[in-house]
Amino acid sequence: MTDHRAARSDDRTEAIMRAALDLALESGYSKLSIEAVAARAGVGKHTVYRRWSSKGSLFLDAVLSLNKDSLGHRDTGDIVADLREQMERAVNLLGRPPWGPLYQDLVGEAQHNPEVAAALKHRFIDPQTADTVARLRTARENGQLAPDIDLELAMELLSGPLYYRFLITQEPLTPDYLDQVLKALFTGMSPRP
Amino acid sequence: MTDHRAARSDDRTEAIMRAALDLALESGYSKLSIEAVAARAGVGKHTVYRRWSSKGSLFLDAVLSLNKDSLGHRDTGDIVADLREQMERAVNLLGRPPWGPLYQDLVGEAQHNPEVAAALKHRFIDPQTADTVARLRTARENGQLAPDIDLELAMELLSGPLYYRFLITQEPLTPDYLDQVLKALFTGMSPRP
Repeated sequence: MTDHRAARSDDRTEAIMRAALDLALESGYSKLSIEAVAARAGVGKHTVYRRWSSKGSLFLDAVLSLNKDSLGHRDTGDIVADLREQMERAVNLLGRPPWGPLYQDLVGEAQHNPEVAAALKHRFIDPQTADTVARLRTARENGQLAPDIDLELAMELLSGPLYYRFLITQEPLTPDYLDQVLKALFTGMSPRP
Repeated sequence: MTDHRAARSDDRTEAIMRAALDLALESGYSKLSIEAVAARAGVGKHTVYRRWSSKGSLFLDAVLSLNKDSLGHRDTGDIVADLREQMERAVNLLGRPPWGPLYQDLVGEAQHNPEVAAALKHRFIDPQTADTVARLRTARENGQLAPDIDLELAMELLSGPLYYRFLITQEPLTPDYLDQVLKALFTGMSPRP
């Protein structure tokens, strides 16, 4: 492919993903269709299908292309402060348009589309897990975590309550909630002796 | 309405919900439509619309009608054992057909249908939360939980990791996982002094 043709193809990919996001925000994900996306992007339906096999996989690429910011952890030496900062960045993203409602639609689609579920895990969840686990490992080595704690489990305990609010009760993810979750997870629910 | 007419109407409601569940299990939730449900149940489309305004609200009623077993907690005096038993019953339900995949579809639908999200919370999540909080309250009174723990928060810490696996990583909810979650939540992630 010449540089010129490659650039045109990139522009078209960009326009199709933009159209999918715009339509999902305007009319809701359930009304999204490949036909409508093609029409909005000014391309033929087959141009879309050449690259994406389903509405779900197009939407996945489009949503993930929006999130250019890293959700990685800093290492200031204080594990609670560093987790807190990363969680705050994550909930700021989840709690606001456009990413919040689009990401919610994407997780919804993953519940009945195994291809989207696998790609979401591979491309978005796994890299974040690896980053969190690396930060937790340093903390464990530095004596800031119980020496026998399973780090993958710790990641699930930290993420679970945020996703539970985001997807199930849809209650707000406030800074105060983050503080409470971290305090309870670090201290434990048992009475102190 | 005479008894005879009421019974016929109940039968029809039952047949429509059954058709919705069967079609979702056979062909996947995304292919479900009011038209197909009406055809399978042998009724007119308008008969379905008279009772349910959308595919989502019909599906919610149908899935919730399946779960006749209580997910309530026993009180044996041992909070960890009682939570463990309730969580095991919940994950047995989540991990197996027909309820598991149907409930997953329902939560997926809730992500882009606020009416379904609100009804799911009101009719399924809230009663379970009330039951768990009541059991946790007794435990706190009996000195089995830290005296300053927020009981609603504790409920979210217990449920979050299970939903995170169920909806996000789709990793198996094993008995061993339940033990690990409970141990970590009760002990806390901080190093013991």
